[in-house]
Amino acid sequence: MNMGILGSGMVAQGLSARLAELGHDVMIGTRDENKLKGWQSSNQKVKIGSFAETAAHGEMVFNATNGTASLEALKMAGGENLTGKILVDVSNPLDFSNGFPPSLTVCGTDSLGEQIQRTFPFTKVVKTLNTVTARVMVYPLEVANGDHHIFISGNDTDAKAQVADLLRSFGWIHIFDLGDLSTARGTEAYQLLWVRLYGAMNTGMINVKIMK
Amino acid sequence: MNMGILGSGMVAQGLSARLAELGHDVMIGTRDENKLKGWQSSNQKVKIGSFAETAAHGEMVFNATNGTASLEALKMAGGENLTGKILVDVSNPLDFSNGFPPSLTVCGTDSLGEQIQRTFPFTKVVKTLNTVTARVMVYPLEVANGDHHIFISGNDTDAKAQVADLLRSFGWIHIFDLGDLSTARGTEAYQLLWVRLYGAMNTGMINVKIMK
Repeated sequence: MNMGILGSGMVAQGLSARLAELGHDVMIGTRDENKLKGWQSSNQKVKIGSFAETAAHGEMVFNATNGTASLEALKMAGGENLTGKILVDVSNPLDFSNGFPPSLTVCGTDSLGEQIQRTFPFTKVVKTLNTVTARVMVYPLEVANGDHHIFISGNDTDAKAQVADLLRSFGWIHIFDLGDLSTARGTEAYQLLWVRLYGAMNTGMINVKIMK
Repeated sequence: MNMGILGSGMVAQGLSARLAELGHDVMIGTRDENKLKGWQSSNQKVKIGSFAETAAHGEMVFNATNGTASLEALKMAGGENLTGKILVDVSNPLDFSNGFPPSLTVCGTDSLGEQIQRTFPFTKVVKTLNTVTARVMVYPLEVANGDHHIFISGNDTDAKAQVADLLRSFGWIHIFDLGDLSTARGTEAYQLLWVRLYGAMNTGMINVKIMK
């Protein structure tokens, strides 16, 4: 499948490499191609493009940009290149302007996922993977043999099912459908706990399992 | 041990009944004693008092009031009745003014736990139990035989150790010390995910286990 990954950081790189490994035709989109030249030398199957080229390339598009820059990056990608497509939003509205630990640019009454959905009403936004670190997103079996949960939020049931299939191809076993996109308020706010778990455990190779 | 429980809702009632069951000398504190008359008829070992009487009674005091009313309730309890004591803060800054699901009155840059600590600098505030429903707080073995985590945040190591001992007496097995009281920002914000888990699972008899 043609995949477009918006972003040039660790999350975008990790998603791109893993999707290419799984046989997808992947383009990674950046504002500055020079940032990715070194990385691409060991990931030659991944094409590099502008935000707009990458969104146009993808049958499914990933928002893996920094949360504070996501809306601007997606506008550069262009609504016309996102119309009718699934946009997998893995970003978080983290505000590092006062250093670590971060706060959130939006909390409780709205979410970045919903902001993106409102900005691009003809795109099917599915929020997922934003509760784990880049490596765990695409290699979930490396934490507790996969015995932990990933959440999924979105307004389109069929889009969520397609994304869940992709998650299973990464190795995800426990996929928890939280409901409509407003439930992204929950997973985004969970970042404030995640950064504290990371601080206490000194590793990001962690996740939660829902117990009942 | 003499225990003072501030609040008259399900959380305060559940804590009071469980502590009395475990042999503690418990007083529950309320603004309106009539609210507890019916409950007390089947919990006769628990005394009822004003906020101030209850705080004075407790060698350890619990804040189990609604988060939006906690600072006011604690001021009524009186700083002089809390000085030098451990205050176990199980409340959350939930804002239900727009119905369910709630938002938070404070998020990311501060926490209710820290607000309480700043208001009562001579009290040892320990935040815990705020990530589970009232029943799970005191009967943790009823969820997955206790195979899940409870978090603890506070600035005083000895106070956290004493509270951890009390948690073990409830049945808690996995007690996760997140660090100083600022880590309460994480557990309080987690409520936004918890309410969505509750909505999706249709039960509050749930919790998370940290996997690595």
